[in-house]
Amino acid sequence: MRHLLSTASLSRDDATALLDDAERFEQALAGREVRKLPTLRGRTVMTVFYENSTRTRVSFEVAGKWMSADVINVSASSSSASKGESLRDTVKTLHAAGADALIVRHPASGAAHQIAAWTAETDGSGPSVINAGDGTHEHPTQALLDALTLRQRLGSLDGRRVVIVGDVLHSRVARSNAFLLSTLGADVTLVAPPTLLPTGVEQWPVNISTSLDAELPAADAVMMLRVQAERMNGGFFPSSREYAVRYGLSEKRMKALSDDAVVLHPGPMLRGMEIGYSVADSPRAAVLEQVRNGVHVRMAVLFRLLVGTDEGEIS
Amino acid sequence: MRHLLSTASLSRDDATALLDDAERFEQALAGREVRKLPTLRGRTVMTVFYENSTRTRVSFEVAGKWMSADVINVSASSSSASKGESLRDTVKTLHAAGADALIVRHPASGAAHQIAAWTAETDGSGPSVINAGDGTHEHPTQALLDALTLRQRLGSLDGRRVVIVGDVLHSRVARSNAFLLSTLGADVTLVAPPTLLPTGVEQWPVNISTSLDAELPAADAVMMLRVQAERMNGGFFPSSREYAVRYGLSEKRMKALSDDAVVLHPGPMLRGMEIGYSVADSPRAAVLEQVRNGVHVRMAVLFRLLVGTDEGEIS
Amino acid sequence: MRHLLSTASLSRDDATALLDDAERFEQALAGREVRKLPTLRGRTVMTVFYENSTRTRVSFEVAGKWMSADVINVSASSSSASKGESLRDTVKTLHAAGADALIVRHPASGAAHQIAAWTAETDGSGPSVINAGDGTHEHPTQALLDALTLRQRLGSLDGRRVVIVGDVLHSRVARSNAFLLSTLGADVTLVAPPTLLPTGVEQWPVNISTSLDAELPAADAVMMLRVQAERMNGGFFPSSREYAVRYGLSEKRMKALSDDAVVLHPGPMLRGMEIGYSVADSPRAAVLEQVRNGVHVRMAVLFRLLVGTDEGEIS
Repeated sequence: MRHLLSTASLSRDDATALLDDAERFEQALAGREVRKLPTLRGRTVMTVFYENSTRTRVSFEVAGKWMSADVINVSASSSSASKGESLRDTVKTLHAAGADALIVRHPASGAAHQIAAWTAETDGSGPSVINAGDGTHEHPTQALLDALTLRQRLGSLDGRRVVIVGDVLHSRVARSNAFLLSTLGADVTLVAPPTLLPTGVEQWPVNISTSLDAELPAADAVMMLRVQAERMNGGFFPSSREYAVRYGLSEKRMKALSDDAVVLHPGPMLRGMEIGYSVADSPRAAVLEQVRNGVHVRMAVLFRLLVGTDEGEIS
Repeated sequence: MRHLLSTASLSRDDATALLDDAERFEQALAGREVRKLPTLRGRTVMTVFYENSTRTRVSFEVAGKWMSADVINVSASSSSASKGESLRDTVKTLHAAGADALIVRHPASGAAHQIAAWTAETDGSGPSVINAGDGTHEHPTQALLDALTLRQRLGSLDGRRVVIVGDVLHSRVARSNAFLLSTLGADVTLVAPPTLLPTGVEQWPVNISTSLDAELPAADAVMMLRVQAERMNGGFFPSSREYAVRYGLSEKRMKALSDDAVVLHPGPMLRGMEIGYSVADSPRAAVLEQVRNGVHVRMAVLFRLLVGTDEGEIS
Repeated sequence: MRHLLSTASLSRDDATALLDDAERFEQALAGREVRKLPTLRGRTVMTVFYENSTRTRVSFEVAGKWMSADVINVSASSSSASKGESLRDTVKTLHAAGADALIVRHPASGAAHQIAAWTAETDGSGPSVINAGDGTHEHPTQALLDALTLRQRLGSLDGRRVVIVGDVLHSRVARSNAFLLSTLGADVTLVAPPTLLPTGVEQWPVNISTSLDAELPAADAVMMLRVQAERMNGGFFPSSREYAVRYGLSEKRMKALSDDAVVLHPGPMLRGMEIGYSVADSPRAAVLEQVRNGVHVRMAVLFRLLVGTDEGEIS
């Protein structure tokens, strides 16, 4: 495995191995005061974020530092892009400056694939590329941490019914999860207003519904999406109030869920809109477990891409 | 000690122990080329700054790195706050992502206390919170470094007369020092225009004066405050010129001070307004000693909160 | 050597020693998976950038981290400058906060010299200052990495003909290279529109030409400059199209160059304007070698300033 660009191209075996590694990292660190492994000592990891993100950038930075990597943050605002440099030249420059891995967030769908293609142009020694979110396309480490959280809560994903709710159109989280959770055996249903479904969704390995209330009773897990108001240009969006009424996971709606169903949200949450104020704090909500698993999943991904797969090597 | 939120709640013993630890760190590093202790190896410290600050953020980052902690900077501008996330969710997320300590600067008075309360909600394992300045409320590590500087210059704070001058209304530095220096035995006098005194100041353990010239001759130390123009909304503020004339520590006014009196300023300084151009460079000024002591004080605080108090452990 | 402020003041021996050290660092790291030397462990290096820069800041950060230094980034936007602090006070504060070296980029020509002068005021223990670009004046590490790249490609700089092309007026890269490459024995020619030549250029150790086509056939190396549109206030600048036609290194113009001539560009490049789209990817172009050498040159400079010159010490 050279890059991690999407979950659509991830085999069941590879995905399972990454989740297993994540749990091994979790166990290696559990209960330790000193959370530091020498695994990536002397490796240089750069985060290259063309969109703001607290949680994803911090999670990768923690993952890298806990494995002793040198982590360097390159933000869009200070980047050479503002001086007219092409993305291709920026990427080649960061490689030449020593990057072993580039963790890229970019507003353009497909940016990560394109970057990975460029790294292969000159010779075989280019950096690994991790897609940390490209436009409305994919966000594979988010899907992996969601899958890990569900596996821990439900025992297995096989045959489990997962309902993904909300602004699917703009959500790279929805797409990455639809593919990964299906690959891992889950039965995935999207619930969204027709205006917030992407074209081509009929080719995803999912069921589609417009009624959240109809799907809740049989669900093993409900994944609420963030409403990406910053990607909308007005017009087709249901009003916030209408969205909350029809697609929000309110306290009242929670009663339709079974007692051991799991509630996920990738964050940042708009409580009171996408999700009821108290719902996100209920024992069924796994929001903070998702964040915690995020660090271990990203350790597993960095390890797999930069070191390899031999089981004996994680510390 | 779990958090450091204010000096008002700090006992004399705890404050003295922190100052003693700061001096032990100073001595441990003195004259070394390699300024690096293993004290906090494997601990994760996050700076979470919702207001800009060079000196405080850099000082904490140096303190953490000199003790081998992993230090991660989370700035307000890139934070999820701009996507509508609540401060409570941001804090819980950073904890779940691995923070052992959160160093927080926030424009709202009371933010640090609130954050500390939230960290205790879920279980007992939340991160330590260090208040690095909350609105016009407190900035305890600044007061500790001021106290250390005065103790080094004056031998002891007991019975020493400290005059705090200027924009007390908007100054968390003034409040934190008023309480801490009184706790440590000093006799504190505030000198400010009546329009720049906070309501409730009569309950602080201080004397109040409106004449700087009357207070200087007997002062052992004069602490000039930064005029926080960015917190003023116009109207009640004396003009810059009037402020400089009545409350600035000019070269001429310096002559009224005794030869071994100490001049402090928390920085950044507006020379020519709050303090005369040459005054800040005079041997009586301890401005750079304050900065130097800041690193050692912050090492002591991080050590106390994350490791404990056993004297044998600092390196 | 205490500071690195300019190449104009660098002797041939010192420059050669820095290039030799850079190559020793390159060899020490070559083929290693673990790129980490203990050379600067416990040293604190701060980047203080008052202008944005991806490549230079990242290059210094990599150099510092590969030698185990603590690297702290201080950006202009978060600095105390916005609160009215003088540059002198900022510099003294960063020193007092523990900086062993300050890597400074500033829009004012002469800023680095001024800062170095200030660090010497109080005592002899001030930090080393590295000029990472000051206005239109100098950028010495860029010239050193260019010289290293040319030395590797051409064997030696002695008697080699180097043509520097474009916006010389605003280019600290041009000035630093003009002096350094001459010092190292090269024969330097500037090619620029008369409106983009600085006053006083007749005292530089260079030839001046206005015809790129006349200079190319005999050139051993061509160094294209970035057009610094952000430093221009309109009026005197040839239009982009005119600039590209007369001073751009087009594919067609490349044919006039000899087969083993070297093409340099400090980046970020405006392909299609300063340099043809395919020219920058041709085997004669050394753009990525420049970036790679940049890390090693900056390691050598940090090593020289912070540790010294004994050959045995680099790792």
